[in-house]
Amino acid sequence: MPLDLSRRSLFTGAAGLTVSGLAAAGLSSCSQAATGTTEAAFPPGAIDPYLLGPAEGVALLSRNENPYGPSQSALDMIEYAATKGAYYANQEAAVMLMEMIAERNGVSPEQVVLTTGSGEVLSAIAVLYGPRGPIVAPRLFWDTTALYAANLGMAEIQRVPLTDAMEIDLAGIEAAVTPDTGLVQLCNPNNPTGLVSDPATFQAAVRRMAATTTVLVDEAYIELSDDPEANSCVPLINEGHDVIVTRTFSKIYGMAGIRLGYAIASAETAAAIRPVVMSWSPCTSYAAGIGCYEDQAFIDFSKAKVTEARDMVFATLDTLGLEHLPSQTNFVYFKSGLEANAVQAAMAERLISVRGQYMDYNEWTRVSMGKIEDVQRFCHALPEVIGA
Amino acid sequence: MPLDLSRRSLFTGAAGLTVSGLAAAGLSSCSQAATGTTEAAFPPGAIDPYLLGPAEGVALLSRNENPYGPSQSALDMIEYAATKGAYYANQEAAVMLMEMIAERNGVSPEQVVLTTGSGEVLSAIAVLYGPRGPIVAPRLFWDTTALYAANLGMAEIQRVPLTDAMEIDLAGIEAAVTPDTGLVQLCNPNNPTGLVSDPATFQAAVRRMAATTTVLVDEAYIELSDDPEANSCVPLINEGHDVIVTRTFSKIYGMAGIRLGYAIASAETAAAIRPVVMSWSPCTSYAAGIGCYEDQAFIDFSKAKVTEARDMVFATLDTLGLEHLPSQTNFVYFKSGLEANAVQAAMAERLISVRGQYMDYNEWTRVSMGKIEDVQRFCHALPEVIGA
Repeated sequence: MPLDLSRRSLFTGAAGLTVSGLAAAGLSSCSQAATGTTEAAFPPGAIDPYLLGPAEGVALLSRNENPYGPSQSALDMIEYAATKGAYYANQEAAVMLMEMIAERNGVSPEQVVLTTGSGEVLSAIAVLYGPRGPIVAPRLFWDTTALYAANLGMAEIQRVPLTDAMEIDLAGIEAAVTPDTGLVQLCNPNNPTGLVSDPATFQAAVRRMAATTTVLVDEAYIELSDDPEANSCVPLINEGHDVIVTRTFSKIYGMAGIRLGYAIASAETAAAIRPVVMSWSPCTSYAAGIGCYEDQAFIDFSKAKVTEARDMVFATLDTLGLEHLPSQTNFVYFKSGLEANAVQAAMAERLISVRGQYMDYNEWTRVSMGKIEDVQRFCHALPEVIGA
Repeated sequence: MPLDLSRRSLFTGAAGLTVSGLAAAGLSSCSQAATGTTEAAFPPGAIDPYLLGPAEGVALLSRNENPYGPSQSALDMIEYAATKGAYYANQEAAVMLMEMIAERNGVSPEQVVLTTGSGEVLSAIAVLYGPRGPIVAPRLFWDTTALYAANLGMAEIQRVPLTDAMEIDLAGIEAAVTPDTGLVQLCNPNNPTGLVSDPATFQAAVRRMAATTTVLVDEAYIELSDDPEANSCVPLINEGHDVIVTRTFSKIYGMAGIRLGYAIASAETAAAIRPVVMSWSPCTSYAAGIGCYEDQAFIDFSKAKVTEARDMVFATLDTLGLEHLPSQTNFVYFKSGLEANAVQAAMAERLISVRGQYMDYNEWTRVSMGKIEDVQRFCHALPEVIGA
């Protein structure tokens, strides 16, 4: 049966008003919406990119995702899985992907928990550990999943201020940990700062804290960092420390719409997390992961595009004399000197979507890398927006 | 990039032993595994169909799924969504599908909650209502999601015996409902019996009970019943009764591997359920639902195949003089006179997968409809298996 073109036309924007209406009604059935900030409020009649994805004419630089994905290797496998066995709920692809992830990370498949996006496994971890005591975390981190549990009355978040350099205050967090702590949650590289902690210092602190409580390290952006292997805490798991690492196919792999993520932990911890996970992922998503997990050419290409875009943004910020953090991710956090929400609104008028204010960091803006031409639009608009 | 054929070969069975090993280790990251019974234990070296799906040579008649799906209309949309916008997490397709479901069911989009399989929304409902009081349900129903919450210590299930005719004892359930009841959960048609309750009696009982507590009706198989419109409880929602209905794309639509389901409830109830949902579904799954939701030709074709298979099974059971229930679904529950687990094992030796014992119904076997040739194998094997 050929595609109904009227449906195609809806996909490309004709349904905008209706969708905007539903967006206004808060209709997302997704619990993963970022809560630390909101996306741009576009002018009336424009399309809300949060619900519609990258609409024609909108530079979507608010999502930390990779517009060059999914890779052809992932797309091929989605098609294969859909036509081969999507009529039965099956996990053949899940098991194979668990084996691939295990092999690459030097763990056993029993230590891998695959979920519908890493948000799901992070939420499950928050539900599992939240009732044991406070979740200790930096003031700024990707808090959506901790808030998921908090909103259900199952967790409390204890935030520790960042250092003056906007880094995670590892000493401060360590000082906050007690035997009553439910979980320490760190994001490395951190979001929205884009900063990677010094590996030796970070891992030493994680080892010490893991003697007292469970330490969760969200490595959503690790593949984008300068030295992913050195930065990762996966080796600590096999050293026997009480550490959980989560990863995602949403960022470097460009599959945010496919929803695939995973946790690596001890076999015992993985077995405790699994019964809390609420969904079972599509075979198409597992297959996509199999297709691209080892696609180094695509990873290298994506990282090169991110680096190119990031260098453009750094150059623009330097020219304007604006303070910015040395990001090792696909987003840059910079101090515009203006209210973040005003910067967001001014960019939105130009159909450029960036993040608004996080917590009380009112003069800081997070801009994501995206298609090179979209990042160029941001760089051209910025001087005007800040009145330079 | 062309598909790696070695991966293809793994998909079609070469990884069997490894997968079986993981299966034995209980490695499913899926919380939706049926718990009322287990699937067949195949002879050593054979493939576990629960993890592998329908392997070559195995008649998989234990899953209540539709081997003729997904429809071409769904497959086309999966491909479209994967190539169009899978790099961004977006809900454009979700919103469109919510509108389609709403329109067809005479509700508003705000009343629809889409999830990664209906198991997810059923689990979310159990988490939401379980802490309020016991979940009152028939002795036999699809209890996986109530058990999900029970296993987390968030729900208690209060089972009411079936009638002598194996029907849901509506009067008994109504008698068990008190203001302290957290939820009444009914499956209509019921699983594993395949029975549909008389619509007038059922709906009258639901209306009365909903004056005291929330009534959840799992309509996973409703499209397979003789008169879906008359049997559905969706109209009760718009009458203002405290009723939630869930549906799935896993059964008549043949998309169990795509994981898509939904709940319909009041806008207020839907808004309460959404924050409990843990995952965000892939755009490919939403798109698949859009592709096939109104594909009446595929629905009619699938229903005809199910009816053809069911008539074959009924005829075989009648010839053998075996009691069976008048199923209006794609599975048949029959009394073999032998231990259900022995029947399952004997069928497994012939590479035919049927369900084992449910609860204490030790002489009853559930067989699902599947490909016509697979159902024929079951019909041919049954006389030998029961020693007729």
